[in-house]
Amino acid sequence: MTGRDGGAALSPIEPSPVVILVRPQLAENIGAVARAMGNAGLFHLRLVAPRDGWPQERAWRTASGADRILDAATVHACVADAVADLHRVFATCPRPRHIIKPVLTARGAAAEFHAIGRRGLRTGILFGPERAGLDNDDIACADALVRYDLNPGFMSLNLAQAVMILGYEWYIAREPETPARVLQTNETQVATKAELENFLAHLLRECDRSGFLKNPQKRPGMIRNIRHFFQRGEVTVQELNTLHGIVTELSREIVAE
Amino acid sequence: MTGRDGGAALSPIEPSPVVILVRPQLAENIGAVARAMGNAGLFHLRLVAPRDGWPQERAWRTASGADRILDAATVHACVADAVADLHRVFATCPRPRHIIKPVLTARGAAAEFHAIGRRGLRTGILFGPERAGLDNDDIACADALVRYDLNPGFMSLNLAQAVMILGYEWYIAREPETPARVLQTNETQVATKAELENFLAHLLRECDRSGFLKNPQKRPGMIRNIRHFFQRGEVTVQELNTLHGIVTELSREIVAE
Repeated sequence: MTGRDGGAALSPIEPSPVVILVRPQLAENIGAVARAMGNAGLFHLRLVAPRDGWPQERAWRTASGADRILDAATVHACVADAVADLHRVFATCPRPRHIIKPVLTARGAAAEFHAIGRRGLRTGILFGPERAGLDNDDIACADALVRYDLNPGFMSLNLAQAVMILGYEWYIAREPETPARVLQTNETQVATKAELENFLAHLLRECDRSGFLKNPQKRPGMIRNIRHFFQRGEVTVQELNTLHGIVTELSREIVAE
Repeated sequence: MTGRDGGAALSPIEPSPVVILVRPQLAENIGAVARAMGNAGLFHLRLVAPRDGWPQERAWRTASGADRILDAATVHACVADAVADLHRVFATCPRPRHIIKPVLTARGAAAEFHAIGRRGLRTGILFGPERAGLDNDDIACADALVRYDLNPGFMSLNLAQAVMILGYEWYIAREPETPARVLQTNETQVATKAELENFLAHLLRECDRSGFLKNPQKRPGMIRNIRHFFQRGEVTVQELNTLHGIVTELSREIVAE
């Protein structure tokens, strides 16, 4: 799944939420977050007090080409500073206590990001350190919490995975949903009904010639079954050509016997 | 975001699709896949011709406790063998050529997995090697392709991320969708209107006493604005107690002056 870029494809898709990593520990995870952001069309990365300082060369090594996101990342001393210019901030938080805030799913957060962004407002989302998560002061900077609906019995969610899920939801919510099922055709085209009929006529002609359809009682049902089979899914022009060839070849062999 | 388990929480949620990694290269990625599967309630892992053999201790190190998934993983010589007992198989595939197959989104695939599973049929999904992806022979073993709707300009999607997105969609589709926004209250409760009114009465009484509402023309509008503010979002019993305390304390100070 290659596709290294480093350039134009990593331009921000605006308006896009700012990803804010709070006290991240491992530079490798910061790089993996940048890669996930690139996958999801996110661009703006802010780091609050990264444990090992910044920049860290190891981050660029795990970013798989999402260099521009890391190059543009900014470092902040505290969460309040990192969110100062934003209008709405969410925080990912597995199980807050003693806190009253709206709680969003990842999908709900994505929808709100788009709605808020369309009003010209700037948004951001906080992700906590790898082990401890966000603390109460961090969460106090947020307007709402985002909780992922995942297996409650195994909550060890990798930081880049958390960013990926949010980013994925944000990206697919950017425009009317992609149809859940479409047909991939590439260089060929789906055959017209006439092209299919032309093939079926060819096939049935050869079936008749070979004696396969010789029983007059069974013939209509057999033809129907053949027709059903070839109409079950869409068929391409290329495939029909192949099928024509097969029928032609098989018929020739029968004649030769 | 801890939550190491290794035990009961990693039982399969049935019916769940089998995750099939085809010729995976890095053991670390296999471990990360198992971790993502644990997050998503997936359990059944099959490996087709892993490059460095199996088992690989490095996989367990990156699985963050999803050991049971790795322990139960099976190894197969080829894709056909790995899918032999399954009824429906999908393949993740960024851009197939010369192939005609239905193409699903991750969400569409998740819905179909559930629908097929409810009929008692077994499903699986193929993920290709880290760099090359699935080849045409692999894809020929699949009934449909799954293509992720992500930034086409930066397609370098990590293997565990690909499994995470599919698993996430599968998990959240297992039952009626979680409400996109709810209010988190924890140990406290949202206040009743009577409790809120009790506080507002307290507040307005003190406002009157302090002379804040002394202008009779402005008084009704000012009260309305105060009321609007306190009713904008839900408020908890705990917060009202705090507000009562503040009003009491502030009033006392005024008296003392």
